[in-house]
Amino acid sequence: MAESKVNSGFDLHVDLAAGGSRKAALGAALRNAVRSGRLNPGTRLPSYRALAHDLGIARNTVAETYAELVSEGWLEARQGSGTRVAHRGGAGAVASRSVVPPQMRPRFDFRPGRPDASTFPRSAWLSAVRRAVDRAPSDAFGPGDPHGRIELRRALADYLARTRGVRTDARRIVVCSGFWQAATILAESGIAGPFALESHGLPFHRTIFEKSGPTLAVPVDDNGCITQSLSELDARTVVLTPSHQFPTGVSLDPKRRIAAVEWARERSGLVVEDDYDGEFRYDRLPVGAMQSLDPDCVLYVGSVSKSLSPGIRVGWMAVPERWLDPILAAKGVRESTVGVIDQLTLAEMITSGAYDRHVRAMRNKYRARRDVLAAAVRGRVPHIGTLGISAGLQAVLTLPDGSERSVLRAAGDAGIALEGLSMFRHPAAVGPVRDGIVVGFAAPSDRSYSQAVDALMSVLTARAPALRRE
Amino acid sequence: MAESKVNSGFDLHVDLAAGGSRKAALGAALRNAVRSGRLNPGTRLPSYRALAHDLGIARNTVAETYAELVSEGWLEARQGSGTRVAHRGGAGAVASRSVVPPQMRPRFDFRPGRPDASTFPRSAWLSAVRRAVDRAPSDAFGPGDPHGRIELRRALADYLARTRGVRTDARRIVVCSGFWQAATILAESGIAGPFALESHGLPFHRTIFEKSGPTLAVPVDDNGCITQSLSELDARTVVLTPSHQFPTGVSLDPKRRIAAVEWARERSGLVVEDDYDGEFRYDRLPVGAMQSLDPDCVLYVGSVSKSLSPGIRVGWMAVPERWLDPILAAKGVRESTVGVIDQLTLAEMITSGAYDRHVRAMRNKYRARRDVLAAAVRGRVPHIGTLGISAGLQAVLTLPDGSERSVLRAAGDAGIALEGLSMFRHPAAVGPVRDGIVVGFAAPSDRSYSQAVDALMSVLTARAPALRRE
Repeated sequence: MAESKVNSGFDLHVDLAAGGSRKAALGAALRNAVRSGRLNPGTRLPSYRALAHDLGIARNTVAETYAELVSEGWLEARQGSGTRVAHRGGAGAVASRSVVPPQMRPRFDFRPGRPDASTFPRSAWLSAVRRAVDRAPSDAFGPGDPHGRIELRRALADYLARTRGVRTDARRIVVCSGFWQAATILAESGIAGPFALESHGLPFHRTIFEKSGPTLAVPVDDNGCITQSLSELDARTVVLTPSHQFPTGVSLDPKRRIAAVEWARERSGLVVEDDYDGEFRYDRLPVGAMQSLDPDCVLYVGSVSKSLSPGIRVGWMAVPERWLDPILAAKGVRESTVGVIDQLTLAEMITSGAYDRHVRAMRNKYRARRDVLAAAVRGRVPHIGTLGISAGLQAVLTLPDGSERSVLRAAGDAGIALEGLSMFRHPAAVGPVRDGIVVGFAAPSDRSYSQAVDALMSVLTARAPALRRE
Repeated sequence: MAESKVNSGFDLHVDLAAGGSRKAALGAALRNAVRSGRLNPGTRLPSYRALAHDLGIARNTVAETYAELVSEGWLEARQGSGTRVAHRGGAGAVASRSVVPPQMRPRFDFRPGRPDASTFPRSAWLSAVRRAVDRAPSDAFGPGDPHGRIELRRALADYLARTRGVRTDARRIVVCSGFWQAATILAESGIAGPFALESHGLPFHRTIFEKSGPTLAVPVDDNGCITQSLSELDARTVVLTPSHQFPTGVSLDPKRRIAAVEWARERSGLVVEDDYDGEFRYDRLPVGAMQSLDPDCVLYVGSVSKSLSPGIRVGWMAVPERWLDPILAAKGVRESTVGVIDQLTLAEMITSGAYDRHVRAMRNKYRARRDVLAAAVRGRVPHIGTLGISAGLQAVLTLPDGSERSVLRAAGDAGIALEGLSMFRHPAAVGPVRDGIVVGFAAPSDRSYSQAVDALMSVLTARAPALRRE
């Protein structure tokens, strides 16, 4: 049986005191290891044979010592599962150890930026990982190339061209762990700053870019980022979310796309396109990646965080030619940050079509959720407006001025995790403050979704008089 | 003469002689740059287009020149990665002691720090990944916890206690992608510097620690790092490789372990224990982790880079209580850097015993290799000494003063990738320079191992008169 084999392979570090009988020394060492808590209750011990071999003592000595410690209550011997540290071992039983308490979980989770974790395509992933590991050349398990596995870079170059209109090739794809790492590379290398950011975005992203110095804010309205105002700013790089502005959800106006590219071209600058959820569009015409306007000055960034799981740390950059060497240099010649098996598995999923199938299924699911949310708003709080509802995993419900905070407080009281527009506002943003809540409608599980929407609508209707008073 | 800067991502200065054909002039300039060592093996050349534009010559001229130099062996053209300077280019091969770029493949690879990539336990990994993905709770596929998955932290706490004598618990384990990330966190957070490093170590590690300022060097002799001299240095943290000094392979003397811990205790400092290959010991008594001397001032770091694969980006820190919050804060609240499936799979491999079985099998394999190497040295170059041969994945062959460079050059000519002791020497190291080669005997495949050892011995015997002349 596998179980007995398991035991024979376990390693155990034992310090045997010099002098005296080996049996006494081993007994003392093991008691001490259990008493001090170094060996936890339930820990399996090596087989007699293995430990005897490692310590250079007789097998019988180990067997006798184990038997003695079992009789003393330090160890437990179970048929078929070998010898383990007892759960209530002797007088020296270890006081139970504190482990981090489970994270506080809200009843309903509408936080933006997270997909439905229950939909991870477990069997598609397992099929792909099997093929990937079976087919991988040996050198895949040697030191990783920070550029990324060629299998994945090829698959991504084709996929991004096909689905997002990105103009690139495998050589100009650089694998990274996600937008976080892409931003870190740009900020820390000093090759791309100063950075201009959209006036509303993730504070967490701003923090990364500010490692290189203060960032500038470009205003966002209902047609996206007002890129015409870039020329007034002393920036070299602008970071945009053109497909689905985060968090407002609006799509960047075509003229403004061109303005941004021209701005970058004129000053040998860079546009960073954060295409964080570009796969998810519902009823408007597909909007291709802005990168296709000028692959020489737009650096395109994407990841599987929204399409598969934020727990899978695989992302990519499609890098303009003249930025490729500086970015690879900044990434370092030595270390890949992305596990090779995740890279090869994703390549398999893309080339086999399993990734497309999953994205399509998710798109249908999220569209249905979006419809439920939109219908609920129309039916129950028709005076509240919506933004960014035609794509992505989040929508904004706009609120009368000054009411955001009280709505968030009421939602919190009802066990609903939610974020307000104001928390995404750049401190250097100018113009009027807009009130609203950002509803990440992908996060709740299918089971709880309609209940979650219902709870949110109840909060908004309960506050309807106040919301209307404006 | 026209010196030109190329707009291709890095600066390449090409001096074109005036007169004659442009193609002949460009060919001569590039050959000269490679011959002189100005362009290192692996350096990427600009695209035809970029270079043609900058030199004001026809694109075809550049393309033809590149093709010519490829056929002459100066350059290499690879699908998807452009044109680069060849590893062993023509007659002018560079006698460089710098790390060979990962994309270049030598005939025999004795570079230290890499396991035999062909031994990755594919089926054990696949069984574990299946169980891990099947059993994972849904929230595993939500946003990751930078602290690391609890399943892995629990498994590691037990494993490290059992096999290395580490005194910790799941709460004080922090998952990271490897020593690289652990060092980056310590250096960038500013919580642990200035750093004292062993006088011989990975230049790559020094580079990370030097992000926080200059590092100091502590001398290493045949009993390891002379930690008694720490008190003369103005450091807060010392980084050690106590089990198997890298690269010399010696084990840190017990008195010196205690001296380091006492030094740290006195000044509220920190000892970082880089236990990069502690699982691999052959004929000496097991040496436990230094961390067990004082878990409150030793931060223990390990990873699967040597035990499984450097392509699997999973490592861990066992963190002293008072350093836990600062390290988690420096790691950031938002992003896990290690893929959740790799984490859960490793946890499965550890708890099922598959990880122990693999480590044990590898230990036997590497012991056999070590024996082959040691026997070959004794039999064929008995005048050459060895260091650090009782553990780990590398051994040092000590050479007469002044002979290291010529041995490396001869090895390079024989297609053997090898590194010299001198490239691991800290620039601030004091004391005599020691000549030697660091033989990473784990890297070659089983198939090529005896041939590789044979080739290395041939280099050493061919140079025997010179080596003895000293």
